[in-house]
Amino acid sequence: MEPTVEITSTHNPRIKRVAKLAHRSTRDELRQTVVEGIREISLALQNGVVPIEAYICNETLPERDPDVAAIFDRLHKLATEGRTELIGVSPAVFEKIAYRGESGGVLLVVPYSERTLSSLTLPDPPLVVVVEDAEKPGNLGAILRTADAAGVDALIIPLRDHAIQNTRTKGTDIYNPNVIRASLGAAFTIPQIVAPAWDVIHWLREQAIHIVAAVPEADTLYTATDLTRPTAIVMGSEAWGLSDEWQQAADTLVRIPMSGSVDSLNLSTSTALLVYEAVRQRSLPG
Amino acid sequence: MEPTVEITSTHNPRIKRVAKLAHRSTRDELRQTVVEGIREISLALQNGVVPIEAYICNETLPERDPDVAAIFDRLHKLATEGRTELIGVSPAVFEKIAYRGESGGVLLVVPYSERTLSSLTLPDPPLVVVVEDAEKPGNLGAILRTADAAGVDALIIPLRDHAIQNTRTKGTDIYNPNVIRASLGAAFTIPQIVAPAWDVIHWLREQAIHIVAAVPEADTLYTATDLTRPTAIVMGSEAWGLSDEWQQAADTLVRIPMSGSVDSLNLSTSTALLVYEAVRQRSLPG
Repeated sequence: MEPTVEITSTHNPRIKRVAKLAHRSTRDELRQTVVEGIREISLALQNGVVPIEAYICNETLPERDPDVAAIFDRLHKLATEGRTELIGVSPAVFEKIAYRGESGGVLLVVPYSERTLSSLTLPDPPLVVVVEDAEKPGNLGAILRTADAAGVDALIIPLRDHAIQNTRTKGTDIYNPNVIRASLGAAFTIPQIVAPAWDVIHWLREQAIHIVAAVPEADTLYTATDLTRPTAIVMGSEAWGLSDEWQQAADTLVRIPMSGSVDSLNLSTSTALLVYEAVRQRSLPG
Repeated sequence: MEPTVEITSTHNPRIKRVAKLAHRSTRDELRQTVVEGIREISLALQNGVVPIEAYICNETLPERDPDVAAIFDRLHKLATEGRTELIGVSPAVFEKIAYRGESGGVLLVVPYSERTLSSLTLPDPPLVVVVEDAEKPGNLGAILRTADAAGVDALIIPLRDHAIQNTRTKGTDIYNPNVIRASLGAAFTIPQIVAPAWDVIHWLREQAIHIVAAVPEADTLYTATDLTRPTAIVMGSEAWGLSDEWQQAADTLVRIPMSGSVDSLNLSTSTALLVYEAVRQRSLPG
């Protein structure tokens, strides 16, 4: 496959733009992010992501790798259809745009997902996860891996008022390349939706989905509530706890029993315990 | 409290030695590590750790912090007993030895724990966790937080042959300051024991503790085995899986159900699921 463009200068304006996607402000402005890593790129393409551009460094591509071959088949097809531009780059240029070390010679620029709540098709009974204020990319990546393993139907990130009114005060940055990386590509297998909190609450009520929120002060153990119903598991941040808005919206507040001297479980661990309790309950006979 | 020594030169040999504790080779050679962070230091002192030295930078200490006051009460007592040396340092010196940014003006040099399997006193029925090859400090720290929250009795790190025969090929580095940090101090609330794998297996058998190991290929779900008995939950590495030695030693092999396209849950998540399943089963009436 011949790229349509070859770039060998690190000062090329396109290269500078891609390098700037390392910053959230640039990502949010252009509504684009980068995907690196053979596994992550494979999962993105398999799950319908259409890259705007693919940067390819032949010198650093692994040879005779079947995953790489499949990636190239797909990119070639997208390029032929005029949907993705292929750009050949030198090792020096690739190093400049690569967000991480072992990127394997391919890097995609992909658009932000435009998926909305109303576009979700849910099985019966649905199991969705709502995570408020997950600031650490590693935590969000781990939650995506858990969601993938457990067969969760969607990860929903509710935006608080301040984040909507002033995008510079940010909500969770699901397009952070470190989230994609920490998810090992599950960022592309699990539908992720970012929406204002009140829209999410309204939608959950409309769908008759039970809102089960985890808070340390709850009376009910997470293992003592019925998670076989249509359920949204709602998790707050480790640092600030769950917002009043979600605590009030919840149909059931539950807690994870903790007997230790350290404050709490980490967010991805707590989320996994609730998600897998739902899996356990749903697998019981009758 | 007046420190006995004041150091203002970053070239002081003691300071150089402490700075070198950032490297595992120095830690293993001296059998010492550093503890930073007000929370972590509090938990270390509360759990009986006797530092060899405490480095104090008055300029960067938080003022009127009750936790800091309690730390100083304890350090003063240990210094009076001649068990801990207090060393005042300038901000420049403190910055040189501080492993992380926000250390709060106190840093301890502590000896490696000399705890052994035979020194453990276990409740009935015991619940211990055995983690083989957990190379990522963040994972091990998260496992310690989970162990603390769930009331696990000990975390055991079995050493494989190659790690025993050649200490340079290392096993898990439980004294990595990033493990202590990621544990939020649970590294001091949960007994951690490093021992050769065969000693651990022999000890578990002697104590009539059931060995329940998680492997992806097992037939039995982790929720379908009795974890109310004396139990050791054994976890292998994400990258290489559980060793044959432990698979053969296990009384029961269990798996976590996974339906996704990404390879696996992360190690700390999988460990938490098994540990909290034991908590759930043990809390059931009758």
